Amino acid sequence: MTRELHLNLFINGRGHHEAAWRHEHATGKALTDLSYYRELALAAEAAKLDSIFFADHVALGEDQEHTARGELEPLTLLGALAALTERIGLIATASTTYSEPYNLARQFASLDHLSGGRIGWNIVTSWAPAAAANFGQERQAGIDQRYERANEFVEVVSKLWDSWAKDAIVDDRASGTYAHSDRIGRAEHRGKHFGVAGALNIPRSPQGRPVFVQAGASTDGRAFAARYAEAIFTAHLQKESAIAFYADIKTQGRTVGRRPDQIVILPGISAAIGSTEAEAQRVWDELNELSHPSVGLARLSNRFGGHDFSHLKLDQVLSVDDFPDPSQVQASRSRSQSITALVARERPTLRGLLHSLAGARGHFTATGTPEQIADVIEDWFVSGAADGFNVMPPILPSQFELFTGEVVPLLRKRGLFRSEYRDGTLRERLGLDSVPSRFDPASPLQRTA
Amino acid sequence: MTRELHLNLFINGRGHHEAAWRHEHATGKALTDLSYYRELALAAEAAKLDSIFFADHVALGEDQEHTARGELEPLTLLGALAALTERIGLIATASTTYSEPYNLARQFASLDHLSGGRIGWNIVTSWAPAAAANFGQERQAGIDQRYERANEFVEVVSKLWDSWAKDAIVDDRASGTYAHSDRIGRAEHRGKHFGVAGALNIPRSPQGRPVFVQAGASTDGRAFAARYAEAIFTAHLQKESAIAFYADIKTQGRTVGRRPDQIVILPGISAAIGSTEAEAQRVWDELNELSHPSVGLARLSNRFGGHDFSHLKLDQVLSVDDFPDPSQVQASRSRSQSITALVARERPTLRGLLHSLAGARGHFTATGTPEQIADVIEDWFVSGAADGFNVMPPILPSQFELFTGEVVPLLRKRGLFRSEYRDGTLRERLGLDSVPSRFDPASPLQRTA
Ligand SMILES: Cc1cc2nc3c(=O)[nH]c(=O)nc-3n(C[C@H](O)[C@H](O)[C@H](O)COP(=O)(O)O)c2cc1C
Ligand SMILES: Cc1cc2nc3c(=O)[nH]c(=O)nc-3n(C[C@H](O)[C@H](O)[C@H](O)COP(=O)(O)O)c2cc1C
Repeated sequence: MTRELHLNLFINGRGHHEAAWRHEHATGKALTDLSYYRELALAAEAAKLDSIFFADHVALGEDQEHTARGELEPLTLLGALAALTERIGLIATASTTYSEPYNLARQFASLDHLSGGRIGWNIVTSWAPAAAANFGQERQAGIDQRYERANEFVEVVSKLWDSWAKDAIVDDRASGTYAHSDRIGRAEHRGKHFGVAGALNIPRSPQGRPVFVQAGASTDGRAFAARYAEAIFTAHLQKESAIAFYADIKTQGRTVGRRPDQIVILPGISAAIGSTEAEAQRVWDELNELSHPSVGLARLSNRFGGHDFSHLKLDQVLSVDDFPDPSQVQASRSRSQSITALVARERPTLRGLLHSLAGARGHFTATGTPEQIADVIEDWFVSGAADGFNVMPPILPSQFELFTGEVVPLLRKRGLFRSEYRDGTLRERLGLDSVPSRFDPASPLQRTA
Repeated sequence: MTRELHLNLFINGRGHHEAAWRHEHATGKALTDLSYYRELALAAEAAKLDSIFFADHVALGEDQEHTARGELEPLTLLGALAALTERIGLIATASTTYSEPYNLARQFASLDHLSGGRIGWNIVTSWAPAAAANFGQERQAGIDQRYERANEFVEVVSKLWDSWAKDAIVDDRASGTYAHSDRIGRAEHRGKHFGVAGALNIPRSPQGRPVFVQAGASTDGRAFAARYAEAIFTAHLQKESAIAFYADIKTQGRTVGRRPDQIVILPGISAAIGSTEAEAQRVWDELNELSHPSVGLARLSNRFGGHDFSHLKLDQVLSVDDFPDPSQVQASRSRSQSITALVARERPTLRGLLHSLAGARGHFTATGTPEQIADVIEDWFVSGAADGFNVMPPILPSQFELFTGEVVPLLRKRGLFRSEYRDGTLRERLGLDSVPSRFDPASPLQRTA
């Protein structure tokens, strides 16, 4: 079987650059307007992308004055988009730290039914420190505690999603038998963080459960991903680090008994596309010109768990001594590590650092012609850095239109990307195995209901 | 101003009768099939109903063998229906006992944006005892504790929904000002049950917040309703009790300073409609014929918090001594009270009792011609029993088609019901005042952000 390239559109504000909302080629619509998301979803579906994706945070982001904040909640939004699209996968973030397994399991099962098997769950532990105070917690739990809870959370919801056999409902009007109650089983989970009796009150969904997506890259995050993730979003400023990450995850996956093709790795790419390199570069320059230093500085501080960087000058050359030890950071540890690595490597000014993060918050950024962007994608794909990409257009919808209009056809011509959807669920499109059922006699999960 | 009759369609399984799923005139679609709900929603919208409504329980109901269980989760379903409809109100149940205020506030705010201001929240404390075990609780909290939490819950989410001023977002690309951060305020809630810093990360929604709907009728439930509810669903087996309830709520509302027209009271009506009375009666008889005693008995037990009725014989005449004291019931107290009142009044056999509850679980049931059903509606409306109705067709969609096709035109002819939607939100359609904002200088909520 030839490897298939996978493409996901990450929909974020008016584009991924933090100043995108000000750019003349960004949408004029409000971030609460469904028609904006409908158009992006339909454009992605017309281009035959695997999926679209929404991030999520359970606190208002920093500096609302100078950047566009206040988007819709992803699960309700995916409900709407499930009704408005037919084929494309729909991935939403939801937090294991700030939600209840029974509620989350129901909403994703429901979405999987609504969409006919097109749902993915980006499992996060919520890095932003401000979230804790919205849930009665004095301070954010540490990374290891958050991942401990995440592990048990995934275990519980997996049991809930497995509580109905595929054939539980018989719906026999004549005999009066609606379901076989011995084909519905309880979760009976009793653990450190959760006690959930089950069963779920929603029948088994088309995919069995949502596709498990993950985006954490710290040591704990990678171990979690190797165990559970079926698709991984990941941020790399350089191809080298993407290759190392790719190899590490596939190896860790093998160690816990998983086949490498069952973990689809999707680094982010934020490409400014122009008909010439100069035109593409102009787009970045315009965006950086429009960006406000306070936005990047506030985000930098947040990543490091609230560290104060306000004494640094914009034109000051940075060294790693200006940063706290990233291995101790409890907020966004992996991103803190890649930022300090960049500082050590390149010794940028503060302004320079903020510009390199403004584009896509630590993801790979590229500028070039459609041909050049297709080259990058092909290069990463064939050299063991990626199974596909998390497409993060700096400006929406204009830069996504260039991507689908100019780059995707090149990928097709090179035999890398599909021209039509095959039938099937998101899980099938990603080449993932079907989800075993405890009611299947051949399954290792089999136990009495 | 003439009073306007309000009509809500309560969508439940394949109809409200517990045996509806077996009836030949019930839908052939699965309860997880979006197209089924889309068709009902569009039919209700074509008939210009005020709203549709979904109940919700966070545990699997009893006796899956003999009754249709396993519906979709309402908030994700409303996301889909928001995208598929244009004018009709959309009301979903969500529990204050088993959810987190920040999560619930976000999802309803998001739905209100997605629907352009058509969302209502049926605020429940979740009566079903089984739910507790899905949320790590040994046993269900008592009614008073549940309502205590509900009160604080509504207080918190109201603060969250009020955290953005209407004009917080300026979206000024030229100056780089996206929002006025002094028009976004924190919730700063610290109470017995919740600590929520706020602000919400979603801008103020079209209605300010969802319309508050409520459906509890115990002493605690009524006090709560009088304070917060803007629309009330209520179950009465007789017109007399509906009149008493109506008067009680409007009086209690006045006592806490509310205008009577700001609480719209909607008793349930489950009408079997036929072209003759005999034909209508046949529908009920067929349904009762199809119902399975174990379903009703399990629900009866559940209502009374798990009381064991299994020693009773179907043909035994009941007395109140066969029931526990309803004023001590912690599950569904108001329904337990109306059931024992019925037993005292009518001394039915167990079979007879189960039949009278099978139709609509304790709501008013009627059989008759369209003319007769319209008469009941008009009578209740003019005699102080109702501001409108929660329409609960025994069989879906067939009995709802008769309702919209035959009864609604009669209500129009009598000048009771609208022929066209006026523009506006659900809140406006129900004649409810707009929601004050703390940022409005004239508001009593005004305080510094
Ligand atoms: C593409 C991508 C999307 C992400 N989306 C979210 C998100 O929506 N919410 C969130 O809390 N974290 C999100 N993250 C962050 C990670 O999931 C992770 O929580 C964070 O990096 C801290 O964990 P770590 O140190 O293990 O990486 C995202 C990361 C990436 C690469
Ligand atoms: C039309 C109607 C719909 C209801 N829907 C729900 C529901 O979806 N979930 C729920 O837990 N209770 C529901 N209830 C029950 C009440 O909200 C309430 O929780 C229950 O009756 C127990 O409280 P009480 O004793 O104060 O009435 C509903 C009641 C009525 C009349």
